[in-house]
Amino acid sequence: MSIKISTKKQVLDLIIDQYDYFLFDCDGVLWLGDHLLPSVKETLEYLKEAKKTIIFVTNNSTKSRSTYLKKFEKMGIPNINKTEIFGSAFASAVYVDKILKLPKDKHVWVLGEEGIEQELKELGYTTIGGTDPSLNKDGVNFDPNTSLLDNLDSNVGAVVCGLTFQLNYLKLSLTMQYLLQDKKSIPFIATNIDSTFPVNGKLLIGAGSIIDTVAYASSRQPDAVCGKPNQSMMNAIKAQLPGLAENPKRGLMIGDRLNTDMKFGKNGGLDTMLVLTGIETEENVQSLNVEDKDVAVPTYFIDKLGDVYELTH
Amino acid sequence: MSIKISTKKQVLDLIIDQYDYFLFDCDGVLWLGDHLLPSVKETLEYLKEAKKTIIFVTNNSTKSRSTYLKKFEKMGIPNINKTEIFGSAFASAVYVDKILKLPKDKHVWVLGEEGIEQELKELGYTTIGGTDPSLNKDGVNFDPNTSLLDNLDSNVGAVVCGLTFQLNYLKLSLTMQYLLQDKKSIPFIATNIDSTFPVNGKLLIGAGSIIDTVAYASSRQPDAVCGKPNQSMMNAIKAQLPGLAENPKRGLMIGDRLNTDMKFGKNGGLDTMLVLTGIETEENVQSLNVEDKDVAVPTYFIDKLGDVYELTH
Repeated sequence: MSIKISTKKQVLDLIIDQYDYFLFDCDGVLWLGDHLLPSVKETLEYLKEAKKTIIFVTNNSTKSRSTYLKKFEKMGIPNINKTEIFGSAFASAVYVDKILKLPKDKHVWVLGEEGIEQELKELGYTTIGGTDPSLNKDGVNFDPNTSLLDNLDSNVGAVVCGLTFQLNYLKLSLTMQYLLQDKKSIPFIATNIDSTFPVNGKLLIGAGSIIDTVAYASSRQPDAVCGKPNQSMMNAIKAQLPGLAENPKRGLMIGDRLNTDMKFGKNGGLDTMLVLTGIETEENVQSLNVEDKDVAVPTYFIDKLGDVYELTH
Repeated sequence: MSIKISTKKQVLDLIIDQYDYFLFDCDGVLWLGDHLLPSVKETLEYLKEAKKTIIFVTNNSTKSRSTYLKKFEKMGIPNINKTEIFGSAFASAVYVDKILKLPKDKHVWVLGEEGIEQELKELGYTTIGGTDPSLNKDGVNFDPNTSLLDNLDSNVGAVVCGLTFQLNYLKLSLTMQYLLQDKKSIPFIATNIDSTFPVNGKLLIGAGSIIDTVAYASSRQPDAVCGKPNQSMMNAIKAQLPGLAENPKRGLMIGDRLNTDMKFGKNGGLDTMLVLTGIETEENVQSLNVEDKDVAVPTYFIDKLGDVYELTH
């Protein structure tokens, strides 16, 4: 059973006293699209003043860590460092480099946006697909008899798929060709599995649903899912924060999704707090089945992140 | 165990003598995209001369029956009648009309092409979405903060999803909004579930994979799948051919897919013949597990449909 945080005493006793490391999901927790949620800035400042360590963990692969820094600034949240941001695009690029050990002369086919492209480029890889403007142009009036699917790059050594708003049939079918190539031996990397993408109170198509299309069409499942709840991202965070690695219970993972954020925190040994500004409702939390392995019952839940500040000031 | 048809005697004894009704899948059997397969025209003429009844059953919903007639002509196969064609777009429109009994003043949201639009219009319905050019225009540079998702048509009474080459994130997200509307009460109709779409020897994204995207994103499964292997289309064919209804074993379903065509024929009580010009290989057929409920072991298989003519002439 999760504890609802709704009093000043609860914030001070249960949140501020118990934790040194605060891991935050971004979309649905700090902001919805381009709309900063109430008292988020004040909450982050309050935690920083209390000498807490803050880390942002996002499954949104459309932005690289560098682009995220700009978004934080634009949102009026200054003084964030690149090392405080862990994104699924970054995690996927690290996976290609450190786990797959893909040679740098191999190309990576990207179904996704510039977040993935930038992170891979920072690690020395050449990407194809992705935001290539010709794929948008040729995809608009797609003809199934096109010759555009004939010239595949034989040097592709990995396929990385994530969220893209510039989706079209050509990009999906090209991705499928690489997934079917060489007896399906090219590694298939998913940035994350979120089925929906919440924007301004609406649920749009999430990376997981896009990835599901090419998975279903090619009869393959991703060889790796790099975003939350996968623990490779958690391990990278712990490598940076030895104190959290030694004592995960001093860490609190705050997010808006049971099947990614809460599971990510719980599997990493951290306590968890669900905010209701994203896709979950109080009803969902109260009716959770603890036997359901796809979700994790959060330690706490709270109406919105900003309540941490509002309840104490 | 399936019998491979490779001699003149087999064609005459096993095919010509035993069957009066020949049901054909189109893509992958008659043609691949715009490329007519060898000796197909001659095979159809040969069967017609032998007084066989011919029916075309296609899961490709991008074309209406009227448009299919034009395609047959363009391919050099004349004298086909609209009543000889059963398409998944037609079957879906009939489902909306006869099974759902959707009032004619209700609108139907279409994720798909003009095949679905035309068949629904022939039955008196107004469609939205589909090939609406504004959705292609607005979808090219999709901004997740768009207001395009705000003005939903409150008069939508059904959602019909099928194959579309003009796919984009906007159309998928709009479809998702209707699937989530009114506590997910708007019926969700899938034209067909083929995961892939074979064109010119390549496998592209099939309707089933596109439908899977919105199904996964909205946590819904289609309320009805109208194309093969669903038997509503078979029942409509039998209603037109009482002789087949009385004695289904006088019918042979010819197709290139185990999980749609072969299953469709077998479930309808017909014998089945797989052609290897589509997505299946001889290896697949020989290694079939008869326990697998997703596929049906064909009665026969043959390298290509045209062999029926070539082996006998």
